[in-house]
Amino acid sequence: MSNNKPTLYTSLSPALLHLYDLNNAVVVIIDVLRATSTIATALYNGAKCVIPVDSVARCIELGKRIDSITAGERDGQIAEGLEYGNSPFEYPEAFIRSKTLVLTTTNGTKLLHMALERGAGQIVTGSFPNLSAVCDYLVDQKMPVVLGCAAWKDRVNIEDTLFAGAVINRIKEHFSINCDSSQIAETMYIDAQKDLYGFMAEKNASHYHRLTGFGLEKDIRYCLTPDGANVLPFYEDGKLVVHNYR
Amino acid sequence: MSNNKPTLYTSLSPALLHLYDLNNAVVVIIDVLRATSTIATALYNGAKCVIPVDSVARCIELGKRIDSITAGERDGQIAEGLEYGNSPFEYPEAFIRSKTLVLTTTNGTKLLHMALERGAGQIVTGSFPNLSAVCDYLVDQKMPVVLGCAAWKDRVNIEDTLFAGAVINRIKEHFSINCDSSQIAETMYIDAQKDLYGFMAEKNASHYHRLTGFGLEKDIRYCLTPDGANVLPFYEDGKLVVHNYR
Repeated sequence: MSNNKPTLYTSLSPALLHLYDLNNAVVVIIDVLRATSTIATALYNGAKCVIPVDSVARCIELGKRIDSITAGERDGQIAEGLEYGNSPFEYPEAFIRSKTLVLTTTNGTKLLHMALERGAGQIVTGSFPNLSAVCDYLVDQKMPVVLGCAAWKDRVNIEDTLFAGAVINRIKEHFSINCDSSQIAETMYIDAQKDLYGFMAEKNASHYHRLTGFGLEKDIRYCLTPDGANVLPFYEDGKLVVHNYR
Repeated sequence: MSNNKPTLYTSLSPALLHLYDLNNAVVVIIDVLRATSTIATALYNGAKCVIPVDSVARCIELGKRIDSITAGERDGQIAEGLEYGNSPFEYPEAFIRSKTLVLTTTNGTKLLHMALERGAGQIVTGSFPNLSAVCDYLVDQKMPVVLGCAAWKDRVNIEDTLFAGAVINRIKEHFSINCDSSQIAETMYIDAQKDLYGFMAEKNASHYHRLTGFGLEKDIRYCLTPDGANVLPFYEDGKLVVHNYR
């Protein structure tokens, strides 16, 4: 029955997350360019786990204490004191299998910690490379959902909005959606879906320009392509691990 | 030269307004359903001024002190102690000419006071009934612009986003726009422009449903129609007055 469907909301920026009740919800952390795309890729390629941390200092400290790879960027450059960056292409299977990745990013890992502090029922991460895994999980759980866009320093961005829209477009009949942000996200996705990369370029997306300025067109194309790393990163005990939910 | 164009940003919610520098900017307060549509209408119909206040108590207090009409709603009903509501149809010329309207609303007047507190360079109000007046003014001023959506209790809404998009679609060549929220707003508007009312109904906009539940379809149609009350409400000395800028 329609009334029994769980709710779905979209938070377009971390600065709006407080408007939504996370306590009994699955919160999907969305940072398409590139944190959550890279998390899915590292786990898909066999990483033991990804430990998301919210500062470079904490990343360095953890890297000294446990056998791990430390990674993170600030403003598009590998942060001082860390070894690797945010590109999914830095984490092929031959390199990352069975290793622990400690990762800090400007927006995505920060949002994950906000969701934790606000008592999220469950936390998973979403990106186009694991779109289907996210959608399948959300439908299976039959719990309320909050799609949390990491945005850019609290400013709404196109790419995270598009991913929220892709999820909504796929699973909306399973949820009760009374949320204009979700409608906006789906409308954007429907407009963009035939050519996400072209849409990003055409719409002059600020992050697209920041990244192409760093020569990262290949990253962007990968991060906008569905199901290249189709696992579900699930947060438990301080780590993101692959969730085998079926 | 392109580099000399002033910037334009869109704040999709009052909870995002702090991200934008208002000090040297024209801030457009947007509360399509219905505060800013009603403000334009009252002024177009000859009101001496509209005094926006941020609480019912302040509205009642001012109403006792000055010869005025007090108006405001909370959750779609005329607030206790006030005389009139938020509908533009309550303010025909025969009623409002030469009068002072003291108005409080759930979202729009609150955002106006936030913009004041944050040191906005200039404050005007925008809505479809005064779309052209707003666009002409912004182009003439050659100042940075922040389009401020009043939203609904900080949640992004479709109708204010659509108006921001309509403004951007009309005047974008005069501004430097590096703002994904602006791109999102314009994309929504382009999708919706052929039938704004139908778009609102189809997208299940939360405010559309709140208002049609109160029997306000006529209000919504008016509030989505361009240039029915084409004046520029300009805030100075605590009042919104018609700005004769040409």
